[in-house]
Amino acid sequence: MTATLDNPIQALSEYVSYPSVSADSSFSDGISGAREFATQRLQDLGFSVETIETPIHPVLLGKRGDPSWPRLVIYGHYDVQPPDPLDLWSSEPFVAIEREGRLYGRGAADNKGPQIVHMCALHRALKKNPNLPLHIIYLIEGEEEIGSPSFRPFLEARKEQLAGDMLLVSDTGSPGPDQLVVTTGLRGLTAMEVKLKGPRQDLHSGVHGGALRNPLQALAQVCASLHDSSGKVAVDGFYDDVIEPQDWEREELSKLPIKEEDYQEFLGVKTLSPPPGYNALEAIRFCPTLEFNGLGGGYQGEGSKTVIPSQAFAKITCRLVPNQRSADIARKVKRSIEAVCPESIQVEVEVKGGGDPYVIIPPGKPGSTGHETKLMQRAFPILEECVKNQFGTKPIYLREGGSIPIIRDLQEVAGLEALMLGLFTNEDNLHAPDESFNLKIMNQAIDSFETFFLNLGKS
Amino acid sequence: MTATLDNPIQALSEYVSYPSVSADSSFSDGISGAREFATQRLQDLGFSVETIETPIHPVLLGKRGDPSWPRLVIYGHYDVQPPDPLDLWSSEPFVAIEREGRLYGRGAADNKGPQIVHMCALHRALKKNPNLPLHIIYLIEGEEEIGSPSFRPFLEARKEQLAGDMLLVSDTGSPGPDQLVVTTGLRGLTAMEVKLKGPRQDLHSGVHGGALRNPLQALAQVCASLHDSSGKVAVDGFYDDVIEPQDWEREELSKLPIKEEDYQEFLGVKTLSPPPGYNALEAIRFCPTLEFNGLGGGYQGEGSKTVIPSQAFAKITCRLVPNQRSADIARKVKRSIEAVCPESIQVEVEVKGGGDPYVIIPPGKPGSTGHETKLMQRAFPILEECVKNQFGTKPIYLREGGSIPIIRDLQEVAGLEALMLGLFTNEDNLHAPDESFNLKIMNQAIDSFETFFLNLGKS
Repeated sequence: MTATLDNPIQALSEYVSYPSVSADSSFSDGISGAREFATQRLQDLGFSVETIETPIHPVLLGKRGDPSWPRLVIYGHYDVQPPDPLDLWSSEPFVAIEREGRLYGRGAADNKGPQIVHMCALHRALKKNPNLPLHIIYLIEGEEEIGSPSFRPFLEARKEQLAGDMLLVSDTGSPGPDQLVVTTGLRGLTAMEVKLKGPRQDLHSGVHGGALRNPLQALAQVCASLHDSSGKVAVDGFYDDVIEPQDWEREELSKLPIKEEDYQEFLGVKTLSPPPGYNALEAIRFCPTLEFNGLGGGYQGEGSKTVIPSQAFAKITCRLVPNQRSADIARKVKRSIEAVCPESIQVEVEVKGGGDPYVIIPPGKPGSTGHETKLMQRAFPILEECVKNQFGTKPIYLREGGSIPIIRDLQEVAGLEALMLGLFTNEDNLHAPDESFNLKIMNQAIDSFETFFLNLGKS
Repeated sequence: MTATLDNPIQALSEYVSYPSVSADSSFSDGISGAREFATQRLQDLGFSVETIETPIHPVLLGKRGDPSWPRLVIYGHYDVQPPDPLDLWSSEPFVAIEREGRLYGRGAADNKGPQIVHMCALHRALKKNPNLPLHIIYLIEGEEEIGSPSFRPFLEARKEQLAGDMLLVSDTGSPGPDQLVVTTGLRGLTAMEVKLKGPRQDLHSGVHGGALRNPLQALAQVCASLHDSSGKVAVDGFYDDVIEPQDWEREELSKLPIKEEDYQEFLGVKTLSPPPGYNALEAIRFCPTLEFNGLGGGYQGEGSKTVIPSQAFAKITCRLVPNQRSADIARKVKRSIEAVCPESIQVEVEVKGGGDPYVIIPPGKPGSTGHETKLMQRAFPILEECVKNQFGTKPIYLREGGSIPIIRDLQEVAGLEALMLGLFTNEDNLHAPDESFNLKIMNQAIDSFETFFLNLGKS
């Protein structure tokens, strides 16, 4: 294929065609294909691009412009979530298909589409002003969907080269084309894998049932102990460091053009189940969670098999809010699991990494520091104006539920604060079958960012 | 292959080579291969064989001898358990291999090996006495490992043809070649599949986590509610109909040449976990259980996937003891699951069938009725003598933990009581990787049954 940034749909379609699943080593060709695609597009834009090896998937580091100019760091990730369950997709996950104003494919919205938006906008801005006085540093990593284990070490090693005035990211969500959101916070994350071992090997449940504890029974017991009957997390000390949202954050949230009933219908659940004291729209932004992403053990096939399995597992992630810390929560959950697991079952809790929550008070909002960089102080109102002109309404300023642990890392290591405009929506089915990207948002966002880059470059 | 009953190892090897997994429809060639093998062996023995269609896998009905002679019914099953997890096998599951006095392969012990024992013994007995005055009715079914759903309807339809004086079965266990067991009871079974549904589809656990109940959390909650902290089943009324074992049964059990420590070491567990009031060797015979044979839902692959899954499942079987009833227990467990499942999650409990427990008091033991058939009254002491001569010790009389629901069905429908000599052992890894059959037991059992058939035929 010969995608160019003149044609955003074509470019995104090619990017989607590389199955860059970072979690599964059998997708290594897709990973390298996507990485080479991104490298070539940055080179088309006039960037010098360095491919920096990591223990898993390399990071791309691109640069253009005079280092003395205002320094804008742009972040994206070229990896995607696994496509399964495959049988629930309406079309091939890695063959982009346009249907009813959307482009379908794994990664179309998370995060390949938003990257194409930035690149195409920059392509147009640089056509109009080839000497746009912004020193732009592009970072595109390949491990976001597995928790970015190599990114922080990369940052520590390269922090001098990353010193900048602000960070631009589009890897967050908005309600829809009529209302965009500037994301002011991201939940943190801690991921764990729990492995339980019972008997040496799988056993006949008739011959041996009653003599020993079944690892699946222990799995249920362990997992059930981690929430109370209201749905709150029942791990000792879990909520100790949680701070309440500010009043202006609740006010902004009330401007969201979505009601709880609509949200419930979208999710397709019989009832919403937020923790006590929060509605569902608040809970996904302001409350921490402990979710089981996968449980398994024993016979998984058709029909029945009367077995007591040797092993069982749980894949767990917690979403964290300020001021919870990833390592602290992992330790508390691990301790809780080890305490409740029956003595007869061996339990192993492996902490798979994560990141702390991030929050920024936009310049001018109650609680802002006034110490933001000049570029940051200009960027928020410029983007607000560009979005208003293209989308018809000003963005609202909201924390969101997802995690991009490296945003916090970039703040801690390189001192960068983030401007994050949300370009995907609930209807995009992130991490799920039939992921897609809204082409109306794509086109209007390219127009918005073209003007944003041009205006931000005016001194 | 051209197996004959002159060579037991060759015959068993060929029987194992047909992958007759009844639970998985992709193994239909193996099912028909095993069935044809059994048909031909019965025909070699002079049986007329009828293949009787059922909704799933046909039953073989073989007959030889004058219907006026004493009527002996022999039962076996040509189907086997699924072979997975495949990676834990030391050799191909459907290629029989002899190593250190054992023949390895799926089904070698359950139940193909014991069938070969009966057939080879009969082959030799009929060579010595071609007119052996026993009317033998052979029943070999293909659905035992999936709970014999078609067998009871088959029995009801054919019960006149099955009228007999006793039933002979070898589908139970013994401690080893130094101590065989005549099985006097089998636990009943009830199998269920629980399906939980939450959101319409898989969701991103960052974007939506906190708004809704995760089906895996509900799965853990439901499953954990089914046992108390001591490991006893916590379903209302579960133990209502359980009766205590008789004193002679506990005495026979004390003769078992195995100690709890040895059993624990065999299982490879840190501690045994029998319910209060029983040791582990008693618990597997005298206590009912509720076991999870498979739990699953969400991401099962390598690494992590931050998803709230749409669905989750549990495969459950209960083992039952006199006088529990399969249908009653299924109803109680279903009710308990439905009561505890959170309102926001849809739950569906499908009862997959089962069977009631079976118990026989051997002629002459305390509590026996004295109303046994003449053939039955002769068969127990003849077999005891044959086993003592070949194996060096008398068999002991014990209930075992496994289930053969059709034994109870044959009692209820055709009035047959069962003489069951256990030929497999714990080391045979039934339903697990590296299943094998002990060739010493095989050869001595063929000799025992040869004499048994000849002596039982003497009027």
